[in-house]
Amino acid sequence: MLRLSQLFVRTLRDDPADAEVPSHRLLVRAGYIRRVAPGGYSWLPLGWMVLRNVERIVRQEMDAMGAQEVHFPALLPRDIYDLSNRWNEYGDNLFRLVDRRGADYLLGPTHEEMFTLLVKDLYSSYKDLPVSLYQIQTKYRDEARPRAGILRGREFLMKDSYSFDIDDEGLQLSYDTHRATYQRIFKRLGLPYVIVKAMSGAMGGSMSEEFLAPIDVGEDTFVRCTSCDYAANTEAVTTALSVVNDTDISAPQNIPSPDCPTIVTLVNLLNAQYARADRQWTAADTLKNVVVMLRHPDGHTEPLVIGVPGDREVDMKRVAAQVSPAEVDVFDEAAFALYPALVRGYIGPTVLGLTSTSEIRYLLDPRVVLGSEWVTGANQQDVHVAHLVHGRDFTADGTIEAAEILAGDPCPLCSSPLEIARGIEIGHVFQLGRKYAEIFGLSVLDKNGKPAVVTMGSYGIGVSRAVASIAEVFHDDLGLRWPRAIAPADVHIVITGKGDDGTTQFATDLAQQLETDGLKVLLDDRASVSPGVKFKDAELLGMPIIVIVGRGLAAGTIEVRDRLANTTTDVSSDTVAAHIVTLARSDG
Amino acid sequence: MLRLSQLFVRTLRDDPADAEVPSHRLLVRAGYIRRVAPGGYSWLPLGWMVLRNVERIVRQEMDAMGAQEVHFPALLPRDIYDLSNRWNEYGDNLFRLVDRRGADYLLGPTHEEMFTLLVKDLYSSYKDLPVSLYQIQTKYRDEARPRAGILRGREFLMKDSYSFDIDDEGLQLSYDTHRATYQRIFKRLGLPYVIVKAMSGAMGGSMSEEFLAPIDVGEDTFVRCTSCDYAANTEAVTTALSVVNDTDISAPQNIPSPDCPTIVTLVNLLNAQYARADRQWTAADTLKNVVVMLRHPDGHTEPLVIGVPGDREVDMKRVAAQVSPAEVDVFDEAAFALYPALVRGYIGPTVLGLTSTSEIRYLLDPRVVLGSEWVTGANQQDVHVAHLVHGRDFTADGTIEAAEILAGDPCPLCSSPLEIARGIEIGHVFQLGRKYAEIFGLSVLDKNGKPAVVTMGSYGIGVSRAVASIAEVFHDDLGLRWPRAIAPADVHIVITGKGDDGTTQFATDLAQQLETDGLKVLLDDRASVSPGVKFKDAELLGMPIIVIVGRGLAAGTIEVRDRLANTTTDVSSDTVAAHIVTLARSDG
Repeated sequence: MLRLSQLFVRTLRDDPADAEVPSHRLLVRAGYIRRVAPGGYSWLPLGWMVLRNVERIVRQEMDAMGAQEVHFPALLPRDIYDLSNRWNEYGDNLFRLVDRRGADYLLGPTHEEMFTLLVKDLYSSYKDLPVSLYQIQTKYRDEARPRAGILRGREFLMKDSYSFDIDDEGLQLSYDTHRATYQRIFKRLGLPYVIVKAMSGAMGGSMSEEFLAPIDVGEDTFVRCTSCDYAANTEAVTTALSVVNDTDISAPQNIPSPDCPTIVTLVNLLNAQYARADRQWTAADTLKNVVVMLRHPDGHTEPLVIGVPGDREVDMKRVAAQVSPAEVDVFDEAAFALYPALVRGYIGPTVLGLTSTSEIRYLLDPRVVLGSEWVTGANQQDVHVAHLVHGRDFTADGTIEAAEILAGDPCPLCSSPLEIARGIEIGHVFQLGRKYAEIFGLSVLDKNGKPAVVTMGSYGIGVSRAVASIAEVFHDDLGLRWPRAIAPADVHIVITGKGDDGTTQFATDLAQQLETDGLKVLLDDRASVSPGVKFKDAELLGMPIIVIVGRGLAAGTIEVRDRLANTTTDVSSDTVAAHIVTLARSDG
Repeated sequence: MLRLSQLFVRTLRDDPADAEVPSHRLLVRAGYIRRVAPGGYSWLPLGWMVLRNVERIVRQEMDAMGAQEVHFPALLPRDIYDLSNRWNEYGDNLFRLVDRRGADYLLGPTHEEMFTLLVKDLYSSYKDLPVSLYQIQTKYRDEARPRAGILRGREFLMKDSYSFDIDDEGLQLSYDTHRATYQRIFKRLGLPYVIVKAMSGAMGGSMSEEFLAPIDVGEDTFVRCTSCDYAANTEAVTTALSVVNDTDISAPQNIPSPDCPTIVTLVNLLNAQYARADRQWTAADTLKNVVVMLRHPDGHTEPLVIGVPGDREVDMKRVAAQVSPAEVDVFDEAAFALYPALVRGYIGPTVLGLTSTSEIRYLLDPRVVLGSEWVTGANQQDVHVAHLVHGRDFTADGTIEAAEILAGDPCPLCSSPLEIARGIEIGHVFQLGRKYAEIFGLSVLDKNGKPAVVTMGSYGIGVSRAVASIAEVFHDDLGLRWPRAIAPADVHIVITGKGDDGTTQFATDLAQQLETDGLKVLLDDRASVSPGVKFKDAELLGMPIIVIVGRGLAAGTIEVRDRLANTTTDVSSDTVAAHIVTLARSDG
């Protein structure tokens, strides 16, 4: 039993100044967490109970699927991460340090390397496989913008696991097993989720899906189809490649276009001076060429021009996901000075491409389909060109999913309109493939006695982030509302009587009875605290059932509030214990 | 049930090259841990189970005593540790790093600062106290000599707790409660211990005791009385101050002593040229003055001369404990050049002391008692001085417990002979006092409404070290022998039959039955492994009960080995399950 008179907790009346989102605000106000540094939080007793409840559910389900728990150091030697090149690739996101002997170390942001080496150390035959290993461990990432309390911290608790298989069929099975386990975990946690296709990002590999909790404050934007079950991270949305067959398009024609460096000014000019017979010119008729500077992990930089229809912005998150591990920098004045072929505001495809004289890489969004006709820059100041046809008058070095995705865009599976939503990434399942096994030489002997490179899957759940995500989903204006599976206690009993009126005795007996029945009880037995403050605290702290033992006791009634259903019931004091036990064991 | 055919473990036939002690050797060979870096180890599934069993017992007992669990980040901002000066004091033992914004961080070696600030944040009245908080958390110390596997690592799991009281009586009670809890914890772990008085070291404060597991490979030397229950870390042994009253001692007399820079050469000279009538001169008649250089946390250095009887060495660990947080460096040639008053080999007390012309601090071991007479250096090359009396002819700036403790030295409590033993520090209880509360301004209002500085206790158990300590105590030539409370499984069942002879079926049924009865079973169901290898693995892995299902089954007998008692019993196959359950629930 937890007694509020002794529990190490203090609620705050005011929101913390730096709190941007409800979970952050409420977890601090309710005394669950405290900030220590940017992205670094201490867990107070109630918060720690919730975190451990989440951790327990994750562990139980991982064990149930047959995964085996191990534990690696967080402090790792550089040489291993040099082999995978992630010492460099992680850039500023990696915490690096030097020990007393001058050796380089890092704080592990993820442990692919370590797991690969461990399996190599122990296993040597196809008979040893498959195996899935996991750990629940503190991770470190030097985030540029730690935010929202424990939603995006620099030190956080994560379950990461890895599957090892002899072949692709095995990997698919391990992946499916993990995916099903994640579904069970989030169901037990009471956390709603959408599974979306994801980019593999810096990790290499193929099949990749994210579990997103659909919450407006989430950092991830995703799309889902309004008709079929397609869902994807915006980074991962694909656009079907198509072709236009129109052989009647006029030859390219230069158009003097002084002071028209933007799409808007260009479209205005077109409609004013080159009016079409059939319809108005729109931004969709123009081809916008956006230049960025890529910075590769080895430090070298490279210009990249991306062509998108003029009615769409370039979505830099989508671009970043596709050029990773290179990073995307702005293309500044100094850069333009280095590449005179690029005439700012008038860039066009005819001087672009690795095989052109400029040798500047040029990639097109798939919406710039083969055979389509465009108005675009003519690569000289104050001149555009019309009737420029993709495939006839220009080509590119390839395609890149770069244009922003808009609500109403067609679903790549069924062409129904897509809708756009936001979410928090709470889990990730990912077919890593043979990348790390190849780097570290993880092979086993196959059935024929020949070495076969092992194929891996990589799977993560943010354990501390799940706590915040649950708080985002389960709260109201009054405070937190924990799902039963992870609440610090099942029942919060508030004594509002004066002590000598039997309320303290009744409440204490009831708490004892409920604990005997297997419930965990938080008893507000504080003597000199007003009923109003006690009610407010009970609502803020968020136990799923609040029981009020007060004036009604004289008449034999106890007030039972269901914080999740938001209902209040007066129950006879004779049957209240049984009532509460039933309620605490119900769903929802 | 754990099946060896699927368990992620491989036993090694050979000892790891770097293994110095049995626990390290066996934990690596049995596949419990793997080295990743100096002082950094990965936990494999069996090792992790043991660690979590230890952690569970520690947590249960901490909760039972009413301590409340919290959790701090390991990555901590410098400013807090600047306030306590430990950013400097920890010297090279601290892992330091810089984040992407250039801010200084450290990896927490211990969390006094954080706990103090947290209580300050939440509590404000004497009514809130006492409170005891704890965490079970990964700690980091950049040890100069990480050794012995997980016995002394650089990343390790520790339970640290802190008590907060309004007055000294409260602190004593909190201390006693922690001490009793530690006794229960180590009893449950099956780990023998000795409680020894300890120095407070760098931590400041007063009462301090260590729990040592008496193991020969331990790094800590301690003494215990052969008669009373006195026990102390050698650093903490005290020598009673006494006085000699002898007014008949001759005046000091210089003695030419060419080529006598050592105690041995000096004693030989005395006996050859200045023979005593009553007895031979011995080293105990000489006063040895040893110079060291102190390096203070702020970087400044200071010479210190320590006087001990010539028949004892200076114990630098004892000195280090007493001058901490200053560190002890050797006094080298360059240093001698800076202090010409110090004539190497002929240093004597008459030029020493802060008030002397040399202004060099001079401290005497308490064995150099007031009124005693000595032969010692005369501060000129090739000259000693005899009949120099402490208090009559020289004084010092104070005393320091510096001389080595020898077996047979008198107990400071009862004067019986002391014995000397070695141990591993597995726990530490410590009255920290008001040091951190003063630094961080942790005051609460007392009964009279006046601010009172809180007094703290600090308490630690090395959780990962406890695993190694238990392995040190519980092993034999064949392998590990885990106490039941922390073994990865209660029973290890070995199938030695051929599968089609009913042994596999019987063993599997037995394993199921035992699991139903609440035991945890490790089943060696490997098909193509010889009985000899299976026996060796079972002995190495160290489950407390080994059950062999083999040829005897045809005759209705199963072999049950008690690894702890080292006995083997043939049991009827009809009753073997009940026999094992009884054995598994017995003590020992």
